[in-house]
Amino acid sequence: MAQNLQPVVDKFESEMDIITLIARKRDGEALTTDQISWFVQAYTADAIPDYQVAALLMAIYLRGMTRQETVDLTLAMARSGDQLDLHDIVPFSVDKHSSGGVGDKTSLAVLPIVAACGLPVAKMSGRGLGSSGGTLDKMESFPGWSPDLTRAQFRHQVQEIGLVLAGQTHDLAPADGKLYALRDVTGTVACAPLIAASIMSKKLAGGADAIVLDVKAGSGAFMTSVAAARELAQTMVNIGRDANRQTVALLADMNQPLGQAVGNALEVKEALDCLQGGGPADFWAHCQEVAAYMLHLGQKAGSVEEGREVATAARDNGRALDKFRQLVAAQGGDPALVDQPEKLPQARLVETITASRSGYLAGVQTEAVGWTAVHLGAGRRVKGDKIDPAVGLLLPIKVGDYRHAGEPVATIHANDPDKLDRAKEELLATLTWSETPVEPLTHFYGVVT
Amino acid sequence: MAQNLQPVVDKFESEMDIITLIARKRDGEALTTDQISWFVQAYTADAIPDYQVAALLMAIYLRGMTRQETVDLTLAMARSGDQLDLHDIVPFSVDKHSSGGVGDKTSLAVLPIVAACGLPVAKMSGRGLGSSGGTLDKMESFPGWSPDLTRAQFRHQVQEIGLVLAGQTHDLAPADGKLYALRDVTGTVACAPLIAASIMSKKLAGGADAIVLDVKAGSGAFMTSVAAARELAQTMVNIGRDANRQTVALLADMNQPLGQAVGNALEVKEALDCLQGGGPADFWAHCQEVAAYMLHLGQKAGSVEEGREVATAARDNGRALDKFRQLVAAQGGDPALVDQPEKLPQARLVETITASRSGYLAGVQTEAVGWTAVHLGAGRRVKGDKIDPAVGLLLPIKVGDYRHAGEPVATIHANDPDKLDRAKEELLATLTWSETPVEPLTHFYGVVT
Repeated sequence: MAQNLQPVVDKFESEMDIITLIARKRDGEALTTDQISWFVQAYTADAIPDYQVAALLMAIYLRGMTRQETVDLTLAMARSGDQLDLHDIVPFSVDKHSSGGVGDKTSLAVLPIVAACGLPVAKMSGRGLGSSGGTLDKMESFPGWSPDLTRAQFRHQVQEIGLVLAGQTHDLAPADGKLYALRDVTGTVACAPLIAASIMSKKLAGGADAIVLDVKAGSGAFMTSVAAARELAQTMVNIGRDANRQTVALLADMNQPLGQAVGNALEVKEALDCLQGGGPADFWAHCQEVAAYMLHLGQKAGSVEEGREVATAARDNGRALDKFRQLVAAQGGDPALVDQPEKLPQARLVETITASRSGYLAGVQTEAVGWTAVHLGAGRRVKGDKIDPAVGLLLPIKVGDYRHAGEPVATIHANDPDKLDRAKEELLATLTWSETPVEPLTHFYGVVT
Repeated sequence: MAQNLQPVVDKFESEMDIITLIARKRDGEALTTDQISWFVQAYTADAIPDYQVAALLMAIYLRGMTRQETVDLTLAMARSGDQLDLHDIVPFSVDKHSSGGVGDKTSLAVLPIVAACGLPVAKMSGRGLGSSGGTLDKMESFPGWSPDLTRAQFRHQVQEIGLVLAGQTHDLAPADGKLYALRDVTGTVACAPLIAASIMSKKLAGGADAIVLDVKAGSGAFMTSVAAARELAQTMVNIGRDANRQTVALLADMNQPLGQAVGNALEVKEALDCLQGGGPADFWAHCQEVAAYMLHLGQKAGSVEEGREVATAARDNGRALDKFRQLVAAQGGDPALVDQPEKLPQARLVETITASRSGYLAGVQTEAVGWTAVHLGAGRRVKGDKIDPAVGLLLPIKVGDYRHAGEPVATIHANDPDKLDRAKEELLATLTWSETPVEPLTHFYGVVT
């Protein structure tokens, strides 16, 4: 049910004036609910030029927004287009959002686990850009699999298998699409209320009853400090709460890649390992925690502790992996590949990198690891770049681990010898070593409710 | 000699990036000379979109600019188009700028005085908008008089009579025209470094060797506080000095109209009175002071004190009035009207307003007086509005003056009975009265060098 914007714009036209709003925010005053609502609707309807909104965004960046303003902005953005309501087909649905990072394939494992426990998941996801990958790109490692679903297909699949993973449509929170594109070219991206409103407006329009936010902090995340990540998490939780959605945020480390795999098919394989009880311990611990909170909010577990057990059971009894097969099949992929992952796209050149000296891994420039994968072809430098699902890298070493000289530290998967050479050099440069023991990194920094 | 912008833009294209500049200013860092130069040239050449410049302007508004940045911006704007150089025809020329206000007809009297003393004045001036009038509109009270001169006419007139008053051309500081239009619609007008750069870039491009700034403070001025006016004045003087132009700023009061007349032909008549030794005392004192500084900088007087004497002599011996006649004649007007001002446009309806009670004038909402004149037809609400040269008002009372009930306080000159009624009501509402004596206002707040 798309809103008809024009009448609202007309109604307020005489009372509202974008220059007044800009001046108010510029001078550090809060905008009213009506002012924010008018601005979002008018901008979505192309009734305010980009240059005026650019000035307003910079004023917001430098002056901030109150909790009320941030909630108002988010709700106005959520209402700027279609709003999904799945209550006629499922009584309660849950959504998650990971704030992104390097090797973050959390959705690939968590969504099937949660859906296998009887909690419907209707998720819209994005594509990768820059050093962060995207869930849709990863799933497209299955030839034929597509995130392009009609509204009817989307609803049907939720009802049939309790799990759907679709692309973001332009009909959902179109204000966010316009505002994000403008922020991207005006130096106004890194602003907590604007980031929070962007993420949460899509979640709210998506119609989930409960939302688990998986916010990363560290050298591979958008928020490099835990304090900044906590502020963003709190802002998003506040929005969710004020919009009557149960919302919890987990703060997790991104000072090293999550798991070992970075690159699309490699990450799918790691997720499949995880759903079969294998894979890197940190990745499973992360997925178990996110799933536990989703199951708890969705009342499939009486506590987070019970949620961990329920999630583990769904992995151990094979129902989560089966749900993954259904997800692949329902959207056009071949579910047989789930059991023959060697038939997923494979790179022609696979080369192991060894430690040139003995020592403890002291640190990882995680964003640079992400860029190494992008340079191999696993991601996009700019929108529209083509992705090679086969390429990427495995980094089976964590901060604090010891390696003797000559022992393997990483594996590069490439389809081009020059890119392989460059990736080896780049990846080694991301690692720093210590002769004395180094403490492992904390993975969870806490929960924000 | 218009600069060819394209090669410069190309040269820097790879090294410069507007998003980097925006982020730098956003984070409170100073932009370099090269960055500012690149930005101004690229924007003038339409190579940067308005929305990015809008974000930068808001960041400048909220973060400010250093003295060096402000000078760099001004020089870059001055160099964005043609730059006049009159040294082949006159050895030294002086310019003035009044920051505007209500009843500010300073140029009409000062320019002929200074030119009559042998100091060439080649001035470009603007039109009125909102509560402030414009010198060109006032001069156009002389039917046939035109500020539209070719470059050759402009130069010829400076050489012939030592005085020219032309419209701002788009060839001079075109960056200012583009930036001002954008500031006007993005809430970024009231920013001292941007105001200073806008004013001074045109003065520098106009080629004057010395500049006297006449900065107003008060309820009828852009800067309502003396502190803000002083800051703006100091910024402009710094720019002038750093650009090797002798520059002085006078700080003057605008908490009541300057002189008595507000409205185009009415102000011309008041200026003519002044040049004949009459007119309001405050207006003459103001003109004498501005002229004295111009004459001193132009070495036609050994001191400001001597400048006052030289200016007074040029008034008293009739040479200033004669220079005014030459200015009217040279640009298409009938100089006979100078001696028959009753033949200038006259309003059909002239009505005197009387005091409804006895008391001392305690205050004037000066901007509102300006708007009263605009509503009569003397100014423009928006660009393009037509001006009626005949209408306006006379307010022959100053703060501190006493009036008995029934004594005249003002005269309205109108061509429309409804507008006349509205103006009477509006004008009376701008005046506040006191039963106890009120101190007269200080007129000069100081000199900034």
